[in-house]
Amino acid sequence: MQSLLLYFDDERAAALRLAAACGLEAAAIERHRFPDDELRLRLPLDSAARLPEQLVIYRGLDHPNERLVELLLLAGEARALGARRLLLVSPYLAYMRQDIAFNPGEVVSQRIIGRFLAEHFDGLITVDPHLHRVASLNEAVPLADAVTLSGAPALAELIARQRPQAVLIGPDAESVQWIEVAAGSHGFAHGVCQKVRHGDRDVTIELPDMPLAGRQVVLLDDIASSGHTLAQACRQLLAAGVRSVDVAVTHALFAGDALETIRAAGVEQVWSTDCIAHPSNAVYMAPYLAAALKPLLR
Amino acid sequence: MQSLLLYFDDERAAALRLAAACGLEAAAIERHRFPDDELRLRLPLDSAARLPEQLVIYRGLDHPNERLVELLLLAGEARALGARRLLLVSPYLAYMRQDIAFNPGEVVSQRIIGRFLAEHFDGLITVDPHLHRVASLNEAVPLADAVTLSGAPALAELIARQRPQAVLIGPDAESVQWIEVAAGSHGFAHGVCQKVRHGDRDVTIELPDMPLAGRQVVLLDDIASSGHTLAQACRQLLAAGVRSVDVAVTHALFAGDALETIRAAGVEQVWSTDCIAHPSNAVYMAPYLAAALKPLLR
Repeated sequence: MQSLLLYFDDERAAALRLAAACGLEAAAIERHRFPDDELRLRLPLDSAARLPEQLVIYRGLDHPNERLVELLLLAGEARALGARRLLLVSPYLAYMRQDIAFNPGEVVSQRIIGRFLAEHFDGLITVDPHLHRVASLNEAVPLADAVTLSGAPALAELIARQRPQAVLIGPDAESVQWIEVAAGSHGFAHGVCQKVRHGDRDVTIELPDMPLAGRQVVLLDDIASSGHTLAQACRQLLAAGVRSVDVAVTHALFAGDALETIRAAGVEQVWSTDCIAHPSNAVYMAPYLAAALKPLLR
Repeated sequence: MQSLLLYFDDERAAALRLAAACGLEAAAIERHRFPDDELRLRLPLDSAARLPEQLVIYRGLDHPNERLVELLLLAGEARALGARRLLLVSPYLAYMRQDIAFNPGEVVSQRIIGRFLAEHFDGLITVDPHLHRVASLNEAVPLADAVTLSGAPALAELIARQRPQAVLIGPDAESVQWIEVAAGSHGFAHGVCQKVRHGDRDVTIELPDMPLAGRQVVLLDDIASSGHTLAQACRQLLAAGVRSVDVAVTHALFAGDALETIRAAGVEQVWSTDCIAHPSNAVYMAPYLAAALKPLLR
């Protein structure tokens, strides 16, 4: 099939890196926001006013609600214009955490958003989707062609260059999966904290029982959202006598003043992958995404 | 069927007026917004952890993108919990203006959002949906039970009480439908302006050719969004020597500083229906909505 990669201007750099790594042509989706927040989107057609049969849409789902509506609009129009295969490359996937009703009546958003994506796309590639009680992306997004990558190997390479003697610390028990991947490939000393969450922004932390005084610590996690967990871990590490604390995350979400919060806690460097466009981006996912995308192209 | 009306706290007053007018029980949907903008919604279950079979969801679609995702989440969970009939009362419907591709490749959002609503709900009631080239709501939202009401009769009654000698002026040719309904029921003098739009916020206007000097004018329209059209009409009416200018609209959207813009232009009173909750609300739609809703209840 003829193929085209479509992107939005605010993700242009990462999308073009992926297109280049796959040898795909790429074109921007025009996007206008009206004063009432309605969106007008425009697909790029060729000179015969046609779309290729296979479209790769590059769109991370930070700003989740607005971007889910973008996907609804794009997929609907692309099908109406004759597209037969729609692949979504969404390096950050939203609504993956609410995978059960913690209280009766709570919307299990993972299942609903997952089904929504499966209904509108023929394939999905994402990075570190923050699944908890669900073992594979396929359970959340019921698509045969649903692929999960991790940012940990790319971040581990960066850390090996920048802090070859680092101790890798995960801010909570769930980060053990990324810590072990990253530590395993380069032989870093490593450990994870125990985290107790009392609310969105209220967290207490217990450091791992290992020698930390004088060491260069890199806090590694899949996502930095409010930044409170990372800030809290950093303060406790510095109080325990470490020499320095840096942060490496797959998803630089940094909601609100999160970046200021973690810098104020004493974090020196902040490194992230380009899954979410952010000034801290230090690692490109294009080679990994391309390796996953090529087998999905027809 | 057992029935329940569900509402969000920011539309509580209007929703409870509708529930009372229909004799329906009503309950709030719990809504929490995480720091990354993801929403956690919770449906109210009875003591046996059940939902009634028929749910009326009251939700206007100002803030359209976020609220469309709310509807996706709610409808999905309600069906999973056994709801058999879902009726949406959406006094303000978004994305109804883009009903054709003005340029090749533009997303025809009316058709896609209309189909989305039709797929998730069994019935829809809305008010003044701002259809242009489409004659009926049913063409935009392919549901047998899709009902359109107008705010014009309720606004006309208010104007008859407050400004019995008013001249009703519509700010553009499309407002003629509301002007004629409102003027017809109370015998107001009336006319419409001709509007030429050069961009979202750049509009020129031609006043109707009728005696206006010394008259009390009420500008009547379905929606006030940026407020620029109403402000421009008000300035030209005052320059033409009218005694006063008030504004009456169905939908008090007032994006950004729209209300300040029209007040600065010299508008005295701003009256709106409660389709969108706003300090200018002066007319309640509950009796009209109830009359339309009752025949849809099973």
